[in-house]
Amino acid sequence: MSHLERFYSGDPVALARLITHVENRGPETDRILAQLYPRTGKALSIGITGPPGSGKSTVVDKLCALYLGRGKKVGIIAVDPTSPFTGGALLGDRIRMQDLALNDGVFIRSMATRGSTGGLALTTTEVIKVLDAFGKDIILVETVGVGQVELDVAEACDITVVILVPESGDSIQAMKAGLMEIADIFVVNKADREGAPRIASEINMMLDLKREKCRREFPVVMAQAVNNVGIDELLGRIDSEAERLKSGDNFEKHRKKMIRYDILKTVEHRFRNRLLDEILSREKLDDFVEKIFAGQGNPYDLARELINDLK
Amino acid sequence: MSHLERFYSGDPVALARLITHVENRGPETDRILAQLYPRTGKALSIGITGPPGSGKSTVVDKLCALYLGRGKKVGIIAVDPTSPFTGGALLGDRIRMQDLALNDGVFIRSMATRGSTGGLALTTTEVIKVLDAFGKDIILVETVGVGQVELDVAEACDITVVILVPESGDSIQAMKAGLMEIADIFVVNKADREGAPRIASEINMMLDLKREKCRREFPVVMAQAVNNVGIDELLGRIDSEAERLKSGDNFEKHRKKMIRYDILKTVEHRFRNRLLDEILSREKLDDFVEKIFAGQGNPYDLARELINDLK
Repeated sequence: MSHLERFYSGDPVALARLITHVENRGPETDRILAQLYPRTGKALSIGITGPPGSGKSTVVDKLCALYLGRGKKVGIIAVDPTSPFTGGALLGDRIRMQDLALNDGVFIRSMATRGSTGGLALTTTEVIKVLDAFGKDIILVETVGVGQVELDVAEACDITVVILVPESGDSIQAMKAGLMEIADIFVVNKADREGAPRIASEINMMLDLKREKCRREFPVVMAQAVNNVGIDELLGRIDSEAERLKSGDNFEKHRKKMIRYDILKTVEHRFRNRLLDEILSREKLDDFVEKIFAGQGNPYDLARELINDLK
Repeated sequence: MSHLERFYSGDPVALARLITHVENRGPETDRILAQLYPRTGKALSIGITGPPGSGKSTVVDKLCALYLGRGKKVGIIAVDPTSPFTGGALLGDRIRMQDLALNDGVFIRSMATRGSTGGLALTTTEVIKVLDAFGKDIILVETVGVGQVELDVAEACDITVVILVPESGDSIQAMKAGLMEIADIFVVNKADREGAPRIASEINMMLDLKREKCRREFPVVMAQAVNNVGIDELLGRIDSEAERLKSGDNFEKHRKKMIRYDILKTVEHRFRNRLLDEILSREKLDDFVEKIFAGQGNPYDLARELINDLK
């Protein structure tokens, strides 16, 4: 059996290898992704994002359990843009993952390449495609952190859940609006703590504008994920949103939005790689640096000349 | 007098306009940047980064005052990647800026475009160049947040100062290592609070590896910026680092590193713009989306074809 045949037959080892291949971006990657592409579009991808300490992992675990209870096949991608430097968060993740990985229905992958920002978000969408083609029904994408990578990853998922906690305070303040833009559903986790009603009403206030503009619901779910409080409601809200995306004009609109994102990011990324391989190869870049250091030219004229050469 | 002549004569209004032009990326931007380029390379750019609430603004203000006392001309760039959505932090910044702006020696600019990540970091380096060509001696670049943009901006500065506070806890844990990589100098601010010695010793432990590898100092300064405690020491550490960058082989090495960064980022960015203007113009992208939605092709074959067309 060829590698792809083993993949199609549902072999998790073949799945893991294919993901590694996509992450490492071998010469065959694009050909393989092109081959898998017709098998994609069936899974529901759900981005789970929020500041560190907001309980994302717990929410992901609980949701996963509920989906397994429904007989769904679940894939989990944990995206951690800073992790090559290993933080405490990751160790916890690994321990948790071993627990979950014992369950046959779940495939878990931690993505921890700190490359270019766009690169990590793009690879995540490619891994989503691989899990989708493999036959996963639900793909939970957990992003650790609150930066641009998370916003990019959110764009690549069908539905985005943003988790906040009462005590996040300052850091939430700084990013609330960015999260406001990407969230389909908010969760106020650790809702038994002081300040939970206040943050919920703040979020609701900010959402009112968006609700009016988009003419749809953006729910705020109060939860205590560790005690399984609010998770059923969250699941129900995700169900409704998934239904909405499938109904009427929404299906075509949403699919086209996702395709547009894929095209844009893929073409950009492959062009950038080509640029770095050929036009700005290491040797050429070294030459340019020497020249400009010696007072000949500048980066702006250089860019113009290189683009003109291309035509 | 032409616009550039007014700029060269030291007119802050001409400076502000030129920065706006660079931010908006007009057709003349590259020509102007190319013209200014020979006048750059004199200023010292200092990136100040750290989590929200760590007191970056206060440190920047105090450093600014010390540099003004030395008769230096200071430029401040406040980079806030999330701000089109307005957070609380920005309002405070604006109030502060009015105070500082009363002082003739200081020019302050808040950059708040949420475009592509790379875009914002790149524009920041271009604004640094403009301030440098204008004759600023010191350029303080304050980044609000802790994501990829901040790491990119740090790379674009001569010296990077990372500010942490004892209570940042979780979020620091998640990003400490990323900051570890970019920091030349650490500040533990609010050092009177509980946990300050612990975080300082944690940082020192993590730095020991880097110190050994790079064979140089990476100082950790204990500070209470609001009370002006530790700011003199910080300034001294910045002075030493600036001296080190100028001495021996370091000067050439550092300049070339900065030039390399400029070339890479500029060429990448201009190529990307060209790509979006021509190869993936709105109309073309719409066509591609329709085709793939209709089941014809996929993003990966499309990217390959577009790159082949280019040759």
